[in-house]
Amino acid sequence: MNDHQPLSSPLLEAAVTELSRLPGLGRKTALRHALYLLRRDPEQAQALGQALIDMRLGIKYCSVCHNISETEICPLCSSPARDGSTICVVENVKDVMSIENTGQFRGLYHVLGGVISPIDGIGPDQLEIESLVERVKSGEIREVILALSATMEGETTDYYIYRKLSPMGVEVTQLARGVSVGNEIEYTDEITLGRSLLNRTPFGAAFRR
Amino acid sequence: MNDHQPLSSPLLEAAVTELSRLPGLGRKTALRHALYLLRRDPEQAQALGQALIDMRLGIKYCSVCHNISETEICPLCSSPARDGSTICVVENVKDVMSIENTGQFRGLYHVLGGVISPIDGIGPDQLEIESLVERVKSGEIREVILALSATMEGETTDYYIYRKLSPMGVEVTQLARGVSVGNEIEYTDEITLGRSLLNRTPFGAAFRR
Repeated sequence: MNDHQPLSSPLLEAAVTELSRLPGLGRKTALRHALYLLRRDPEQAQALGQALIDMRLGIKYCSVCHNISETEICPLCSSPARDGSTICVVENVKDVMSIENTGQFRGLYHVLGGVISPIDGIGPDQLEIESLVERVKSGEIREVILALSATMEGETTDYYIYRKLSPMGVEVTQLARGVSVGNEIEYTDEITLGRSLLNRTPFGAAFRR
Repeated sequence: MNDHQPLSSPLLEAAVTELSRLPGLGRKTALRHALYLLRRDPEQAQALGQALIDMRLGIKYCSVCHNISETEICPLCSSPARDGSTICVVENVKDVMSIENTGQFRGLYHVLGGVISPIDGIGPDQLEIESLVERVKSGEIREVILALSATMEGETTDYYIYRKLSPMGVEVTQLARGVSVGNEIEYTDEITLGRSLLNRTPFGAAFRR
């Protein structure tokens, strides 16, 4: 199929054009999805279309942690079962899901909305850093865990937040850097290997917890 | 991400579930699309959702050729510029697009809706074969071109249609089988090679047209 050839039906063309605006979804795949929906019950297209509209209009951001939420304050922030003295700082909503799925964290989150990246024009003011400082200032926060990407930008952001928070007497920690579980030493890069040597842990510590 | 872990937001969960019902689109990709839409203007999700609904409700099938159409009779069937004496028989709507994109055909189409496949429980009655016979019976059809897949099922269907139509005095032809343009002989399978020898054409015939 010629990618620039408009389709004979304007309705199909509109659906394919909108679908292909999704990330990594080309016109060919969009057409395949559209033709698939045409072969199915009308209810399926109706349910999909309505779910996307309802999701976009119904989901807001939690005014405390900036995670997605259908309420003013998200279920995590308002849950009495969570440890309110620990905040895990993450880049985005997806990272909250990833950490929740580990089942290893019972504290609260703070979604920055990205990392400091001068090359993309993202400075501290575009991120939810000031609101994190406010949270630490006002609450009984004991520890802030930095769980940002182990990249140049992530570590720059880590350092920026550390400089802001450390004078306030809160403990600032960072996710451990080390050899990925399942990886061979031979294929682990030298910087990671160096960090994993520096931060070595007593043998079996992870099992004893 | 655990694929079976429900998401914290029911609205997000509904959108991801509906998206992942599209063919070849897993839950991870569905989540990526949904989170992407959450980061964009509400108008984009609205446009996508509405386009899918409008498409499904607005597109019907042409009562003559069974191609998709927004009108009772599709633009191809009602166009005076098309040659009404030739019908190209295809499996599905996508095949009409592919053949239209070649720019080599000016006749009309007939969309069967599949091929005969006993293993999938698809017999001649599930396909638009009877309506093709009716078209040939009632119209001034000179030639029917069979453009079905070169598979066992496609050729079975070709033969079935040929048996139905040949007593009616219409010419029944089939797409040429041969070496794909751009392919090396070394990598062409022997059945195709055999067919391409049997159906060899005068050298340069394609250029002279």
